[in-house]
Amino acid sequence: MIDIPLPDSDAREEALTRLDALVKPLGALGRLEELAAWLSAAHGMVPPRPLDDVRVVVFAGDHGVSGVSAYPREITAAMVRVFLAGKSGVNVLARQVGAKVRVLDIAVDDELADVPEEVRQYKIRRGSGSIDFTDALEPGEAERAFDAGRLVANAEIAAGADLLIPGDMGIGNTTVAAALVAAVLGVPAEEVVGTGTGVDEEGRARKVAVVERALARPRGSDPFAVLTALGSACAAATAGFLVQGAARGVPVLLDGVFSGAAALVAREIAPDAVHWWLAGHRSTEPSQAYALKALGLEPILDLGLRLGEGSGAVQAVTTLRAAQAIISDMGLLADLA
Amino acid sequence: MIDIPLPDSDAREEALTRLDALVKPLGALGRLEELAAWLSAAHGMVPPRPLDDVRVVVFAGDHGVSGVSAYPREITAAMVRVFLAGKSGVNVLARQVGAKVRVLDIAVDDELADVPEEVRQYKIRRGSGSIDFTDALEPGEAERAFDAGRLVANAEIAAGADLLIPGDMGIGNTTVAAALVAAVLGVPAEEVVGTGTGVDEEGRARKVAVVERALARPRGSDPFAVLTALGSACAAATAGFLVQGAARGVPVLLDGVFSGAAALVAREIAPDAVHWWLAGHRSTEPSQAYALKALGLEPILDLGLRLGEGSGAVQAVTTLRAAQAIISDMGLLADLA
Repeated sequence: MIDIPLPDSDAREEALTRLDALVKPLGALGRLEELAAWLSAAHGMVPPRPLDDVRVVVFAGDHGVSGVSAYPREITAAMVRVFLAGKSGVNVLARQVGAKVRVLDIAVDDELADVPEEVRQYKIRRGSGSIDFTDALEPGEAERAFDAGRLVANAEIAAGADLLIPGDMGIGNTTVAAALVAAVLGVPAEEVVGTGTGVDEEGRARKVAVVERALARPRGSDPFAVLTALGSACAAATAGFLVQGAARGVPVLLDGVFSGAAALVAREIAPDAVHWWLAGHRSTEPSQAYALKALGLEPILDLGLRLGEGSGAVQAVTTLRAAQAIISDMGLLADLA
Repeated sequence: MIDIPLPDSDAREEALTRLDALVKPLGALGRLEELAAWLSAAHGMVPPRPLDDVRVVVFAGDHGVSGVSAYPREITAAMVRVFLAGKSGVNVLARQVGAKVRVLDIAVDDELADVPEEVRQYKIRRGSGSIDFTDALEPGEAERAFDAGRLVANAEIAAGADLLIPGDMGIGNTTVAAALVAAVLGVPAEEVVGTGTGVDEEGRARKVAVVERALARPRGSDPFAVLTALGSACAAATAGFLVQGAARGVPVLLDGVFSGAAALVAREIAPDAVHWWLAGHRSTEPSQAYALKALGLEPILDLGLRLGEGSGAVQAVTTLRAAQAIISDMGLLADLA
């Protein structure tokens, strides 16, 4: 049982009162006001603290599904090197907002012997089982990966993180995300499977068939059994990362479909953790919409993104900072001369 | 006839080619890719230049409608002082992105003798006629206000503006915006009138009646006649500002309902100007949706804002900068090892 604190509802009330006193019509700053109240509750103070130190952790790994991606699996290892060179999409977008990016090899199907050891320190395995034929993970691996994700969150928080962002990178991950969402919510594969990084309709039909076969295999009902059967080491590590942010009372900004699916499973492990999560952006993948709806989360941005990596969430950091700024710095109606 | 240059379609093609070569799935950065191509065309180069110098100009004035706002008209003058003190919503949000904010008294119904002369240098008149009974402006005032807006744009561009944002502040401006949109597009008042800064259903019904009476009055068909009958000095000045940004080849980021309505009229004056405009955010006012649809513009953000002031557009600056950054700084697929 992981103990999750609750955000401060008194601070939230105080924030709502202050927002109504700012020099603007009631509610005119829409979502910014809602986020300002949320941050006040998370920090237990009005105004909330600035979100100076933002940290993205990209969980990299290959996923146990074949023939479903537009890209070969060698891409995953090559992309780890792109992250380390600072040339990926999220690297560039994170620099825009001064966020740090860390990439971790959780289950890349490559030794990656040329990359720094710290990148591989949480590695669980190479790739994972093809979920339409076998379990994704061996017994105990989901738990180990989940604990690794918690340790990573702890390390980032110890280093000063004000806000955590989970990123994902790996061939096959939208298929696994769809399978997890379908399993947790009991939704047919047809409704949650999308076109991922860009497969055509035939490719999507293959993904639907893979997810249907995966869902038809026997599995246990507890969240770790679901992660073992249908997930991946990255999904379990991401779930641990999300839960531990919440356990430590640090806001987490979910990215796209993969972190949405991980969050849905993570909530089964720690139901109150959802109070510490926000959704950064709307993915084009249908399973994300199902996951966020079930979690009661509304994405901040909708820019038609489907890159993963934390690239959507990192752009929403500006909106959170704007929310913090308005409640902190705007004048009051009472001061109108 | 105002000469408007066209964006560089060769640079746009070159940008699209480069975007497809970046280290990501085709199209995975969605709207950012579209904006990167747009900026490349605007700047005539790939990658486009960084948008370092962003300038918001808030056109302040009272609008000739009565009994339609949740706030008394004295608020407009008082708010000018809030802008000058740097305590308004857009002041705070602009600081977040390093944008400059300038407020101009175009038609505030107050002498504002206590504010710096430069704030009043483009003042056209105090308030404007109540559009349901009389013309908003005297003959020639719409043209003068339009020219003032052009001069303001020229001054900001001379000072180094890479991006212009029109802001608005003034009691009655959502009613005038609705009237302008209804007149230009031939849409019934009932469909374009919203709740503005926060009137109730009865208040909205009064606004609908005002706009219906205004639309029923005789007026000429050319855009300046529309601005004279149904607009305001602020609407005309904003239209001039938008057109002149385009004439000088400087991108303009529209804000909410007021700049959307002004843009709709401005396009009647200079049809090609629309190529230089982007829509920063989705307003909660229905007339903005009509205006943007007619202009072929899709808002970048949708945060439920209805403050005006340029407060929505200024938040979308981050997205434009993100678009510039990805096409400038991301690695190439060809470099994948």
